[in-house]
Amino acid sequence: MIKAAVVGGSGYIGGELARLLSRHPKISLEAITSRQLAGRNVSDTHPFLRGYVDLKFSGSINGEGLDVVFLATPHGASMKLVPEIVRSGVKVIDLSGDYRLKDPRTYQEWYGQEHTDLDNLGRAVYGLSELYWDEISKADFVANPGCYPTCSALGLAPLFANHLVEGTIIIDAKSGTSGAGIEPTKATHHPNCGGSVNPYKVGRHRHTPEIAQTLSRLQGHTAEVVFTPHLIPVVRGMLCTMYLKLNDDLTKQELLDMYTEFFRRKRFVRMTDVPWTPAVIGSNHCEVGLEMVGGRNVVVMSTIDNLVKGGAGQAVQNCNAMFGWPEETGLDFPGLGV
Amino acid sequence: MIKAAVVGGSGYIGGELARLLSRHPKISLEAITSRQLAGRNVSDTHPFLRGYVDLKFSGSINGEGLDVVFLATPHGASMKLVPEIVRSGVKVIDLSGDYRLKDPRTYQEWYGQEHTDLDNLGRAVYGLSELYWDEISKADFVANPGCYPTCSALGLAPLFANHLVEGTIIIDAKSGTSGAGIEPTKATHHPNCGGSVNPYKVGRHRHTPEIAQTLSRLQGHTAEVVFTPHLIPVVRGMLCTMYLKLNDDLTKQELLDMYTEFFRRKRFVRMTDVPWTPAVIGSNHCEVGLEMVGGRNVVVMSTIDNLVKGGAGQAVQNCNAMFGWPEETGLDFPGLGV
Amino acid sequence: MIKAAVVGGSGYIGGELARLLSRHPKISLEAITSRQLAGRNVSDTHPFLRGYVDLKFSGSINGEGLDVVFLATPHGASMKLVPEIVRSGVKVIDLSGDYRLKDPRTYQEWYGQEHTDLDNLGRAVYGLSELYWDEISKADFVANPGCYPTCSALGLAPLFANHLVEGTIIIDAKSGTSGAGIEPTKATHHPNCGGSVNPYKVGRHRHTPEIAQTLSRLQGHTAEVVFTPHLIPVVRGMLCTMYLKLNDDLTKQELLDMYTEFFRRKRFVRMTDVPWTPAVIGSNHCEVGLEMVGGRNVVVMSTIDNLVKGGAGQAVQNCNAMFGWPEETGLDFPGLGV
Amino acid sequence: MIKAAVVGGSGYIGGELARLLSRHPKISLEAITSRQLAGRNVSDTHPFLRGYVDLKFSGSINGEGLDVVFLATPHGASMKLVPEIVRSGVKVIDLSGDYRLKDPRTYQEWYGQEHTDLDNLGRAVYGLSELYWDEISKADFVANPGCYPTCSALGLAPLFANHLVEGTIIIDAKSGTSGAGIEPTKATHHPNCGGSVNPYKVGRHRHTPEIAQTLSRLQGHTAEVVFTPHLIPVVRGMLCTMYLKLNDDLTKQELLDMYTEFFRRKRFVRMTDVPWTPAVIGSNHCEVGLEMVGGRNVVVMSTIDNLVKGGAGQAVQNCNAMFGWPEETGLDFPGLGV
Repeated sequence: MIKAAVVGGSGYIGGELARLLSRHPKISLEAITSRQLAGRNVSDTHPFLRGYVDLKFSGSINGEGLDVVFLATPHGASMKLVPEIVRSGVKVIDLSGDYRLKDPRTYQEWYGQEHTDLDNLGRAVYGLSELYWDEISKADFVANPGCYPTCSALGLAPLFANHLVEGTIIIDAKSGTSGAGIEPTKATHHPNCGGSVNPYKVGRHRHTPEIAQTLSRLQGHTAEVVFTPHLIPVVRGMLCTMYLKLNDDLTKQELLDMYTEFFRRKRFVRMTDVPWTPAVIGSNHCEVGLEMVGGRNVVVMSTIDNLVKGGAGQAVQNCNAMFGWPEETGLDFPGLGV
Repeated sequence: MIKAAVVGGSGYIGGELARLLSRHPKISLEAITSRQLAGRNVSDTHPFLRGYVDLKFSGSINGEGLDVVFLATPHGASMKLVPEIVRSGVKVIDLSGDYRLKDPRTYQEWYGQEHTDLDNLGRAVYGLSELYWDEISKADFVANPGCYPTCSALGLAPLFANHLVEGTIIIDAKSGTSGAGIEPTKATHHPNCGGSVNPYKVGRHRHTPEIAQTLSRLQGHTAEVVFTPHLIPVVRGMLCTMYLKLNDDLTKQELLDMYTEFFRRKRFVRMTDVPWTPAVIGSNHCEVGLEMVGGRNVVVMSTIDNLVKGGAGQAVQNCNAMFGWPEETGLDFPGLGV
Repeated sequence: MIKAAVVGGSGYIGGELARLLSRHPKISLEAITSRQLAGRNVSDTHPFLRGYVDLKFSGSINGEGLDVVFLATPHGASMKLVPEIVRSGVKVIDLSGDYRLKDPRTYQEWYGQEHTDLDNLGRAVYGLSELYWDEISKADFVANPGCYPTCSALGLAPLFANHLVEGTIIIDAKSGTSGAGIEPTKATHHPNCGGSVNPYKVGRHRHTPEIAQTLSRLQGHTAEVVFTPHLIPVVRGMLCTMYLKLNDDLTKQELLDMYTEFFRRKRFVRMTDVPWTPAVIGSNHCEVGLEMVGGRNVVVMSTIDNLVKGGAGQAVQNCNAMFGWPEETGLDFPGLGV
Repeated sequence: MIKAAVVGGSGYIGGELARLLSRHPKISLEAITSRQLAGRNVSDTHPFLRGYVDLKFSGSINGEGLDVVFLATPHGASMKLVPEIVRSGVKVIDLSGDYRLKDPRTYQEWYGQEHTDLDNLGRAVYGLSELYWDEISKADFVANPGCYPTCSALGLAPLFANHLVEGTIIIDAKSGTSGAGIEPTKATHHPNCGGSVNPYKVGRHRHTPEIAQTLSRLQGHTAEVVFTPHLIPVVRGMLCTMYLKLNDDLTKQELLDMYTEFFRRKRFVRMTDVPWTPAVIGSNHCEVGLEMVGGRNVVVMSTIDNLVKGGAGQAVQNCNAMFGWPEETGLDFPGLGV
């Protein structure tokens, strides 16, 4: 058993990490930190963990004896913590946005602050497991992708890796409200969001450059991404509907074959006719489907649990890579289905 | 056209009052106040009112020329405003809890503060239109009932007025989240309430003594009420399921006949098999149904739109009484149904 | 008062027509037909109408004395009924898909059957009131648009009318489940749709050619439309998120000015920052907003109540045009807002 | 590894059994039957099981080699299948209502048919694990309780076992729609249930006598139960709010102590302040809380996942008892929490 800690465990991603780590056969969860909640029971904040995670929040970790640290801290906070932990030789998986964007100017533009840890930014491996497993396997420091970038990149990767996309890619994303975090806001006030689907941050969501970076890297040149997130009145789950034009004539069957080949050994990606969110809820799975809709127009749909494959589950999957275990270790269970 | 103002118009009840008053054939809405939002467009806060209520919030009313004031202020605030407005000769309908409980000690016990306007407390008429129309017609000052007390009292009134209830009355109420108000809270944070039904303030909700007061007055002696409110993941609407024991042997048909007789000329109460909230949403209607479930046990169900019959609509209905108009004036439209 | 009938009144659109017509100041609702429910109370099927529409379903209309007939019949059924009613001199508003597509070959392709009433197909005026008010005013026979075509065309019309769009237009639509009709199906079974957003009929929804027809007519040449509808877990309301590329450099402000000008005298279209479905629910309003999101990429969002502006309300608005009344007659009320 | 089969696997309970059994460390799922779907992939019906349960539905089981059979068949069907399977020496856990009611006259009264297998009815052990673990451990045939009876009995057992209840017990239950099964119905049509809470089968739900039987057995004399189920607009989860009067003066703390003692070694029952459904969703846990609300009136609240502790999970727990394993075997994971 290796020893792990979660830093910043008071939010949904922290709770989800604890849920998964508490059942992981090779990881012992030693500590969960929260500056505001230090000394209080983790299960007071996350009542579903009672009987599974009977720790108290600690104010901070001391790295002694830890093998891996999961940072569930907000952006800005992570880059203050990472240098010291990395220096101490402990492996780190950062779930914030601080180390995802390779270009610090892009970071500054979208996150509104200067990046203060260029060393580790250069060293960070982007933890989209299905694409970069080998790199992650060799890494000590992984930047865990955002939920939208995970969901959309998995749906689009085969097309971009095969250089088949022409022009702008449109991503219309619908997310459950848990993605907005544990703090009440106007946007997540039930009367505001419980009876409608609400677009937000149109054209200015921070996941936009992250998606563009992944797709650009895949195809070898800059991808133009238009990304619109919406809140839907469900708690968990996310669906991305994506629109693009092929640069060649291909049939639906040819595309499906390409996707099947691309994801051949990827346990967590399933091709399906129409992705259905309940089939992945609670699990690390992603479902992907597509349709040709006239001419060279393709609609790709993908769905994940935003807190699992879109956050804590993928972090565990990355951890599995970093320690040389099979990717499904501790994640080998199906979605709820209904 | 008489002239009306809404004081405290920044919340859901204020917006709903404006929605109804803007279409009322005999009322001209002259002012809406909000101390924090003074000078800003009402339709910035209540966007659905654009084109219907093109006022700016004012900081306060000056009573000149007004015929009626609707107070949508919080409890505690209302009793500071009422004395002066009443003194100026303007009719007042107060939608807060300040003047509903006749006994100031009960007020102090449940609202945690001393009542500072005993004069008007003594004078206030309880505005449950279906029960007290005649009194309301002669009143200058009406205390508009709470949403739960309206919904439950309408379901129970025929039984209590006919002295048929023995022992404790159980009220299990389920409310849409708009009843919790416009300010985001932990309880109305979508991830907390969007996927479950949540009991709250069990045994200590302020509407408990208000319900008991109405039922006690109807039967002529103290009614014992157990009341448990729940938040359900819908925005509008409320259902009360109520349990009681008859003190006599009666058939379901006898009870139905009694209810039908009791509500004979009440436009807004409809007897039905199983009340269905969508049938009353957006309207001032209440649906009531009941079942005998073994022995002398009765289950009564009632449903209203918590913002209309449970708030703004009933206030308008009371206003109609106070000015001698038919009760459905400005309220003569059906629920959305679906 | 003119005399109206609703043919095919057992579904949601029929009930909604009855709801609106029962309150219309210039229309008397004389009959509602349903072959299966003939002789039964309308309010047994539509309980919210009790006290407002106290008719029984009739098996059919006889045109004597009627001034206008609303057909809420399924496609295929409408084109069997229209010839005789039109011949009798009664005005007709057909809410099915039978007369919306001008080219009978397109009808056959998308509806899977031959069109059997080419005479009236040629004569039918497409009833998108904001675009074709003058034509509708002179018409005796109007084809009422579909819900998705209404919502999307209102959001896009100013751009297409000003010949500003280049290439494919992407429409990602999210609809409440009432749009799926009153009959239970697998798609509307709550466990299947209540906790997720589900794409359906991707690339093959019948509203696709209808949208393309409207946009093509506006710009004077063929518009390429990619349209993906989704069911969201709300009952009423619809949001379209639309993606397009401008063929010229324009600022957001220039676009907003153009929209404001285009809809200047259109009571039911409101420009807003981010459209919010609850602001239009229960009303005939449409809210439209837009963003520039990099380069010449535009995201347009629009929202309507699918049963009102997307169906029954627009039919009443068309009726108002046909009889020379102001467009808001009987529709002059705001959305619920919350 | 023992060998298990699920008979009647096309519904939600069948799918949930397969989900749980596929991860059980001591059970190998050998077959799932469905007469209508024989020969088709289980994962076509239950897509979330792809990669976990890669069986085809078989038309029937042949008992050879099986150690246990889970019957997820409808009532009426189970009692036709049980005699032969029991005779063959295979252990059986029946999830239908056929063997829960000890008195065949009660069965006939509530299920509308004669019981045709009195032998096994006499032999069946009622599988409410927290109450009857020892009996279940020795049983070869277990009748798995209904969802409502499980949720309510767990909330009430300590009071009834301690003979503390006077008079009628009121159970107001709220269930997610998955409890209604996989077949679309009017009640589960999203426009009918997605925006409201709907009482159903008031006073005549078949779980009523089952609840009464359990409570009566606990206290040693007949319990009078009034039970009202409601559908709420969530897919999974159930909350029971229960009202009763104590026959003695006890404080809340005394009651809490009694509950804590009663459930001391019961891994799956957690005492909490206010039970919160998301904390148990996806898990076999039950949360119970209570309040004194004046006089001797008590409100008890309990929540479970209706498909897990209310169905498939409890069946697995019973199987664990029957084979002598710890109760949490294969069930040792927390709820989703959010």
